[in-house]
Amino acid sequence: MSESRDKIGFIGLGRMGRGMASSIRRKQHPLTVHDIAPGPVAALEELGAASAGSAAAVAQASDVVLTMLPGPKEVQSSILGTDGILANIKPGGLVMDMSTVDPETTDALAAACAERGIGFVDAPVGRLAWHADRGESLFMVGASDADFARVSPLLEAMGSTIHHCGGPGTGTRTKLVNNYLAIILCQLNAEALSLSAAFGLDLEKTLEVLHGTTATNGQLKVNWPNKVLAGDTEPGFAIDLAHKDLSLIVQAANAAKVTLPVAAITREAFSSARGRGWGQKDFSAMLDAQCELAGIKPPRLKG
Amino acid sequence: MSESRDKIGFIGLGRMGRGMASSIRRKQHPLTVHDIAPGPVAALEELGAASAGSAAAVAQASDVVLTMLPGPKEVQSSILGTDGILANIKPGGLVMDMSTVDPETTDALAAACAERGIGFVDAPVGRLAWHADRGESLFMVGASDADFARVSPLLEAMGSTIHHCGGPGTGTRTKLVNNYLAIILCQLNAEALSLSAAFGLDLEKTLEVLHGTTATNGQLKVNWPNKVLAGDTEPGFAIDLAHKDLSLIVQAANAAKVTLPVAAITREAFSSARGRGWGQKDFSAMLDAQCELAGIKPPRLKG
Amino acid sequence: MSESRDKIGFIGLGRMGRGMASSIRRKQHPLTVHDIAPGPVAALEELGAASAGSAAAVAQASDVVLTMLPGPKEVQSSILGTDGILANIKPGGLVMDMSTVDPETTDALAAACAERGIGFVDAPVGRLAWHADRGESLFMVGASDADFARVSPLLEAMGSTIHHCGGPGTGTRTKLVNNYLAIILCQLNAEALSLSAAFGLDLEKTLEVLHGTTATNGQLKVNWPNKVLAGDTEPGFAIDLAHKDLSLIVQAANAAKVTLPVAAITREAFSSARGRGWGQKDFSAMLDAQCELAGIKPPRLKG
Amino acid sequence: MSESRDKIGFIGLGRMGRGMASSIRRKQHPLTVHDIAPGPVAALEELGAASAGSAAAVAQASDVVLTMLPGPKEVQSSILGTDGILANIKPGGLVMDMSTVDPETTDALAAACAERGIGFVDAPVGRLAWHADRGESLFMVGASDADFARVSPLLEAMGSTIHHCGGPGTGTRTKLVNNYLAIILCQLNAEALSLSAAFGLDLEKTLEVLHGTTATNGQLKVNWPNKVLAGDTEPGFAIDLAHKDLSLIVQAANAAKVTLPVAAITREAFSSARGRGWGQKDFSAMLDAQCELAGIKPPRLKG
Repeated sequence: MSESRDKIGFIGLGRMGRGMASSIRRKQHPLTVHDIAPGPVAALEELGAASAGSAAAVAQASDVVLTMLPGPKEVQSSILGTDGILANIKPGGLVMDMSTVDPETTDALAAACAERGIGFVDAPVGRLAWHADRGESLFMVGASDADFARVSPLLEAMGSTIHHCGGPGTGTRTKLVNNYLAIILCQLNAEALSLSAAFGLDLEKTLEVLHGTTATNGQLKVNWPNKVLAGDTEPGFAIDLAHKDLSLIVQAANAAKVTLPVAAITREAFSSARGRGWGQKDFSAMLDAQCELAGIKPPRLKG
Repeated sequence: MSESRDKIGFIGLGRMGRGMASSIRRKQHPLTVHDIAPGPVAALEELGAASAGSAAAVAQASDVVLTMLPGPKEVQSSILGTDGILANIKPGGLVMDMSTVDPETTDALAAACAERGIGFVDAPVGRLAWHADRGESLFMVGASDADFARVSPLLEAMGSTIHHCGGPGTGTRTKLVNNYLAIILCQLNAEALSLSAAFGLDLEKTLEVLHGTTATNGQLKVNWPNKVLAGDTEPGFAIDLAHKDLSLIVQAANAAKVTLPVAAITREAFSSARGRGWGQKDFSAMLDAQCELAGIKPPRLKG
Repeated sequence: MSESRDKIGFIGLGRMGRGMASSIRRKQHPLTVHDIAPGPVAALEELGAASAGSAAAVAQASDVVLTMLPGPKEVQSSILGTDGILANIKPGGLVMDMSTVDPETTDALAAACAERGIGFVDAPVGRLAWHADRGESLFMVGASDADFARVSPLLEAMGSTIHHCGGPGTGTRTKLVNNYLAIILCQLNAEALSLSAAFGLDLEKTLEVLHGTTATNGQLKVNWPNKVLAGDTEPGFAIDLAHKDLSLIVQAANAAKVTLPVAAITREAFSSARGRGWGQKDFSAMLDAQCELAGIKPPRLKG
Repeated sequence: MSESRDKIGFIGLGRMGRGMASSIRRKQHPLTVHDIAPGPVAALEELGAASAGSAAAVAQASDVVLTMLPGPKEVQSSILGTDGILANIKPGGLVMDMSTVDPETTDALAAACAERGIGFVDAPVGRLAWHADRGESLFMVGASDADFARVSPLLEAMGSTIHHCGGPGTGTRTKLVNNYLAIILCQLNAEALSLSAAFGLDLEKTLEVLHGTTATNGQLKVNWPNKVLAGDTEPGFAIDLAHKDLSLIVQAANAAKVTLPVAAITREAFSSARGRGWGQKDFSAMLDAQCELAGIKPPRLKG
């Protein structure tokens, strides 16, 4: 395949990024990585990757540069900065950002790349860190058909479910819609199960009913039984992070003049939970934060 | 079985009740029915049921009396009224209410029956009228074990899914929790898909993504593709009825000092939809009501 | 004056009612009172009032009967019950209800009285118990002009501010609108001052600014400096009562298909405060309940 | 006075800024102005001000530089940019920003100035453009005592009410708290008066009642009778601008982990109004936007 000749750059070896870069290297793609933390860089070198001292150096060494960074600020400075990727990447190159950012940032990146004749793909990641470690992430991809074809081998190395959502910008937007639903389901389930507990209902029987009707939902069925309902509130996805995503969503919706009352009031519920010290718990622990408000004991599955 | 000897009374042959009573009669239970509308009564007589001119007369002729009535007021007067069921039913009798009412009403009925030594079962119904016609309803049942055993043949005649949720009162409460989730999912999906539409995303692709993550939910997956997303907003369950249920839920939660911000703000969204003329549409049409607020065209599935 | 010949009945000598009845007696109106508590009855007898053993007996002895009762249920049974006022009052009589009830109840009372040819006035009371003791209450009155003229001497005995809002039913409705604003101002001020405290602003300086702009409001300016901001959270008007009024308001608005998002979400804030044990505090103490959620110290005026 | 020797620079001659700069010039302060629009610059020159072609040139010509700009972005680039005020102002100089910005921006400005030994004052403006034209603005000032003394003659030239709220940053924060209350009062009054209209109450009588209780508020009493209630919805302060301020407030509160449910849900009400085309109306026109949702005619004062 022609794509296999692309030299790949990867910037951002955080908790998610290191697994994703490793997956690419395992498929034998030529890879140059960069991160300010030496540990993950060394781990990638052991897998045969080269390392570079800056985003600029990665860009100079690569045809396709992937970024997996904490947020809009880091993405903007890394890609658009005076010493950034776009100023150093070769003609015919492509930038794929996999960070979670707001649509405005993604659109600005896409426009800047287009102006320089550089390809741009937004491909935010779904699922959790342990999926990334195994190359089993989910990607929501915004790209032209040609750019999508070019990055497909990389996406398939990193993930097991790839959605091509449309042109540039649609990946970021689809991720916001998806996270809106997944996050707010936590508040929804928290309200329902706190009410159920206040009513004195049996948790197992209630869940049995709910899963057999249109009330069922992915969080309640898939995530919660292994997390808060099992007494595990260690963060798979922390309330602080969910709050950050909700803020991006509410901001984007307000910019689009779309009113999202449930999103807005749920953000406040998350804010209240953070003010009471729940920020570093799993987002399913909104159940416990909600029960705290009602002065009731949070329900748990038996044994 | 000893249960088969019970003479059954059935009060309330509305859109749901007529199918339910017919299902009982088809299983050859001796049945006396009552309704103010002559049509459904005649239809039941054709199936071999007797008819009676009042709730009192039904009670006098029956061992087990079932009620399927519009709301708390009708239930209370029919069961507790001076000329009602409880004043006329024989010792050893049992009352099973299948109407959707508030927990306070159910508890009052249970207490009044207990005081008289009469059995009481609350068994609100899930699913839609056409399920009732076929004997495929879902029941959430609050009853003692003995009473549950006694009414089981009747429930199995009327429904295909029977949940024994606990003692008297747990059926009504489980139904409120279930309807809370199912109804609010409609507002949730309305917000998500209106945002998606404002973002210009492709509906089919967005749904494909959502159904593969924990964002998925029963309304979006099972109900919506056949209703609002297919352009059908005829009421399977009307916004007016959903609003009524939300009001019961918010009222019950406030009485229990459980704060339900999402339920409360969703009730206002339904209230706003009603104020703008959407009350008699299917509750999935909250999508269209929401899009109206944002001045965007409601998304529809292709073809 | 012709009005002075009316024999007055007064039912309900609670914390407010006893002061109001005393004010009437002090103006020498012939008065018969009834309450189940013997203490207040005796106190009124000392002022020259007669007492009667039942609502029926009061009605039989009076031309104009006033009711000041806890809520809709008591009002309905007292006025409309088989042994109630309406069944016993003489032709040409008048009933004035001063309790806080929902519009539906008021309308039902007005209709029942009209049908019997009995006058009806709804005249809910503003201000606090100590105003009632001094005859300084505020009344919002719904009445025909003739009925208003007839009860004016009584209203003037009990209050210092009398608003004739329109025909029967307008008193109750005006009170709901008024209480909506006054109660929600407490949540509004709680949010503003908790934000101010989180910002580390000086309370006195902040209030000085707010009172000089259109941000000023009656609760913040008149009530709060003597209550929560002075550290006094003893109930002048308890959070539990404010929650009850908010429930009436939200219910009436939903019945009218008017969406009140701020009222709905504020009711949940009050519900949350109740769930955390604040129900018996003054409604200005919503400030402290709000600060508790944010983990900050509630602001207080110095010295 | 020693202060009078300061040479003043003024950047930003928009609708508010031109009146404020004119007021300074009228008090004979030596003044250099800058704006990209030639019209207001020429008007100031006629009053005896000098003009300069850039922020840098203003800074080089001045001891004290005032900025009155649209928002955080313009303020940051104008003050902190490589060719901005701070890079060009003389030692011993002072920067006073009067724009409405978020606390984070103000704090960054204050820190950057402090690092350079330059004084910093945040002094956002209250009231409307026509007050600015007459030198009757209100200022909420965050400054050290020395800096406050230095800018006092300028503030007194521009305004008639000056609040020294505390050290740097307190002006911006006080303004957010103040605007929170003023803006949300509009939603509050909109809900109350729409409910009143749905109840069929007389507007004048309702207002008479409300203004005599703790329900009264500055918006309803001072602003609304001359704006929406008189049928004038031309923007004194537009819904779009109020929405922008609400966004700053909700963002700042969320950053401080203070939950503001009423602010959040009101922002959505404003967002809904904008989606329905009300953005360029006065913020008191939230009444009309609210009545539109309920399908009722907005109330107006007679004559």
